[in-house]
Amino acid sequence: MFRTRVYYQDTDAGGVVYFANYLKLFEKSWFEYLSSIGILLPEWEKEGTFLLVKKVLLDLLDKARYGDELEAHTSISDVKNAQFTLHHTILRDGQTITRGETLMVCVDAAGKPKRIPDDFKKRLLACQRHSMTTK
Amino acid sequence: MFRTRVYYQDTDAGGVVYFANYLKLFEKSWFEYLSSIGILLPEWEKEGTFLLVKKVLLDLLDKARYGDELEAHTSISDVKNAQFTLHHTILRDGQTITRGETLMVCVDAAGKPKRIPDDFKKRLLACQRHSMTTK
Amino acid sequence: MFRTRVYYQDTDAGGVVYFANYLKLFEKSWFEYLSSIGILLPEWEKEGTFLLVKKVLLDLLDKARYGDELEAHTSISDVKNAQFTLHHTILRDGQTITRGETLMVCVDAAGKPKRIPDDFKKRLLACQRHSMTTK
Amino acid sequence: MFRTRVYYQDTDAGGVVYFANYLKLFEKSWFEYLSSIGILLPEWEKEGTFLLVKKVLLDLLDKARYGDELEAHTSISDVKNAQFTLHHTILRDGQTITRGETLMVCVDAAGKPKRIPDDFKKRLLACQRHSMTTK
Repeated sequence: MFRTRVYYQDTDAGGVVYFANYLKLFEKSWFEYLSSIGILLPEWEKEGTFLLVKKVLLDLLDKARYGDELEAHTSISDVKNAQFTLHHTILRDGQTITRGETLMVCVDAAGKPKRIPDDFKKRLLACQRHSMTTK
Repeated sequence: MFRTRVYYQDTDAGGVVYFANYLKLFEKSWFEYLSSIGILLPEWEKEGTFLLVKKVLLDLLDKARYGDELEAHTSISDVKNAQFTLHHTILRDGQTITRGETLMVCVDAAGKPKRIPDDFKKRLLACQRHSMTTK
Repeated sequence: MFRTRVYYQDTDAGGVVYFANYLKLFEKSWFEYLSSIGILLPEWEKEGTFLLVKKVLLDLLDKARYGDELEAHTSISDVKNAQFTLHHTILRDGQTITRGETLMVCVDAAGKPKRIPDDFKKRLLACQRHSMTTK
Repeated sequence: MFRTRVYYQDTDAGGVVYFANYLKLFEKSWFEYLSSIGILLPEWEKEGTFLLVKKVLLDLLDKARYGDELEAHTSISDVKNAQFTLHHTILRDGQTITRGETLMVCVDAAGKPKRIPDDFKKRLLACQRHSMTTK
């Protein structure tokens, strides 16, 4: 779980959070979520295991404004040999304002897909939820 | 059509364009494409007509690196009363590296959905292509 | 004081934090610092008082990398009728890696400079430190 | 010289270009300026020569808004063994709205300062202007 305010840098001249910035919030959310289940991405990079975003779905349900306090949650589904799906939800005062999915592919330092290392995968599987899309 | 280089600001420590930054390139592409068919968004805003992004699909097929020259193309489908879909393709040397869709909703200054003004809609319809998804 | 990790979104292909992103960290730091002394910027905006950045100094002493934990501190100097200076320091493991200053001007909703409201100014003055530059 | 529009992504909820985004425009401007005098930064990186930003000065004189057409210019001063200064000016309709300086240090792949390679330096010197600050 990741909590943040909406700062000026997140907004645009429409007075609300710029749509692409939700993906940045997703990244912070998955980084902290994976850390919380023992997957420290910068450590894995030192071992030659990297995550690449392959597909994104983003659904904007409501607007967020300067000063709003947001909460981002991430969960896992569809863990396969070399990829898995992350589901992200952004809430304000307990209400979902944005949700999305990112398909993550496991790659080596050269960017080539590779099997998710055993310890990494075991942790993903332990937290996997039943597959479902955000629709 | 919008051409740009990949600058440091577009990349991340993985050495490639950060995934969320493709959405920023989509915005530049749709702004310039809509301008080219006579829809000047900042002018429409003065008349109380705004566009809001409601849904996004993003498909990353290949990586782009610092210094790469990219070309972004936008096309239109599914023009309805208050919304339409934009399709975006990013190419390098004629090869698609990223594609995506954005569902655009027409709103007033208060952010409430409203009918697309006649002149705006007429221009969209004139350029509409057959509906298809990026899949 | 504001604590954050360095995420992919903060870095560039050089493997370190992109220089302009330190200014974004400064904004988060001053927002939270001003909040901590009772100046809630989004609340003041509702009263017609806005802050505008007029000048920036940025000094990069060391690099920060993906996964680093950073701490940002802000302090105040040179409080005048319509402007004041903020000093920012970013540390990693207790060592300063970046510092900077931002000259903040108080403006109304139309962007015109105006006197800092009394209650706002009183709080700034109570926390003002002796003037000094980052040089 | 680099020309661009102001897009939503460049602005914030204050309705104007977010202050940190001018540094991103500076980067685009220096990349294209250096290219125009035969210094292709991505090519130099392949040879092990990188540029690092060490100090930044930014002076915001006027605001830029969504849809504005901006022009950025870069010039060179104070070319030394391992560093040089770039001066940036951003104009709208021929009027300077922002200016700044960036102190650039030449480093190797490990981030260690190194002498500017001869051919690189020769090109800088040929375009050097009389030293002056933005003040």
